[in-house]
Amino acid sequence: MNPTAAVLVIGNEILSGRTKDANLGHIAEALSGIGVRLREARVVADVEEEIVAAVNALRARYTYVFTTGGIGPTHDDITSACVAKAFGVALERNPEAVARLERHYGSAQHLNEARLRMANIPAGGILIDNPISQAPGFQLGNVFVLAGVPNIMQAMLDGLLPRLAGGPELHARTVACELAEGVIAAELGALQDRHPELEIGSYPYFRNGFFGVSLVLRGTDEAEVAATADELAGIVRRLGGTPNVTVGTKG
Amino acid sequence: MNPTAAVLVIGNEILSGRTKDANLGHIAEALSGIGVRLREARVVADVEEEIVAAVNALRARYTYVFTTGGIGPTHDDITSACVAKAFGVALERNPEAVARLERHYGSAQHLNEARLRMANIPAGGILIDNPISQAPGFQLGNVFVLAGVPNIMQAMLDGLLPRLAGGPELHARTVACELAEGVIAAELGALQDRHPELEIGSYPYFRNGFFGVSLVLRGTDEAEVAATADELAGIVRRLGGTPNVTVGTKG
Repeated sequence: MNPTAAVLVIGNEILSGRTKDANLGHIAEALSGIGVRLREARVVADVEEEIVAAVNALRARYTYVFTTGGIGPTHDDITSACVAKAFGVALERNPEAVARLERHYGSAQHLNEARLRMANIPAGGILIDNPISQAPGFQLGNVFVLAGVPNIMQAMLDGLLPRLAGGPELHARTVACELAEGVIAAELGALQDRHPELEIGSYPYFRNGFFGVSLVLRGTDEAEVAATADELAGIVRRLGGTPNVTVGTKG
Repeated sequence: MNPTAAVLVIGNEILSGRTKDANLGHIAEALSGIGVRLREARVVADVEEEIVAAVNALRARYTYVFTTGGIGPTHDDITSACVAKAFGVALERNPEAVARLERHYGSAQHLNEARLRMANIPAGGILIDNPISQAPGFQLGNVFVLAGVPNIMQAMLDGLLPRLAGGPELHARTVACELAEGVIAAELGALQDRHPELEIGSYPYFRNGFFGVSLVLRGTDEAEVAATADELAGIVRRLGGTPNVTVGTKG
């Protein structure tokens, strides 16, 4: 079985439109790079029952769950308590997390009670390093609790990716052309039917004043991905288009 | 009861990291503007059972559900069929949708079978206008099915917002200051406790070389929001900060 994952974005600010989420795309790309398939993402508000329900729904279905947001020092930071509740374990003051905060804040005066809340970790949680501002994330079971601030989230993820079991690498080719989607749709569907183990997607674009479509092929067998991309390029030519084949999904 | 909403983003390209979703933030802001509370968002892949399950879970919980993506002419566009299945109704070729496509494509040669798939609408669906490329979205029950291409999605949403029942307007003030979150957390939590009907959020930032925090207050009683923002500005001053109070959530 290939490892799968879900992302749970926690925070009112995403749902109010105040803040545009920048973490989902980053995690998606990072997981793709180690062969983990991101299957689902959810965004929920800072509401205990919503967070608990989402954590439990996702951790039961996917190999890994990554949460972002809600682990700071303020009253609306309730992710750690909710994850503890989801797992039915106690939320405890973690001595190692306290030690890291003490080193960061330097004195008891600066390390006040609000900041010490960031050392409250569910029992059994394994700390995730935060090289930016020290307050750690944590792993509990298959759930990885990360910060919401993008550069901190990214640093945490960089540190923990090497300890995840990945899956077979996904190879991709993109065939871009100026044909309309509707012109190539029938042949593309037939190609997908002939290669059911590939994932073939069609993404129309408008760039530099021109409409076109990027046809993306993904799969674990690089030779098949490459050969099918060549086959698709031939189809595009036959339909009067000029295919541009690139490695990866971004073409 | 205030009207609530969920967004369901449909598409492998979001979960692979190829495409950064640009629709959630736009819909969130548009709904805020008419007093509809966006409570949840989900991103699922182009997989029938996932889409059907998400549509049914969300439409049972929220006043409105908005889906984006998967209504084009290619094999991976399966949203309309999935919504029909979720509601247990037939997917039918809609004569008005066909007529719109005929006007757009001009001839039977260009309006091929793949493009005609875009006129397949669940029985009972009410068309949503697409002023950009004509292929319509639709409303079925409390579910609004929109395109994934951002400018088309936005045009569809602009057209349908006036027919939604909104709720009491949400007013917001933002108190920004250069204090650290941990310095103000205790007082902020106490302020939230004194004003339980307000939503108070704390969002740290790093801008122009300075760290700081934006404290956002939202509620339906504008006088209370404004007075509480003033109270919070006083707290910031007492803690040694310089508050900058602005109307809205973006400060």
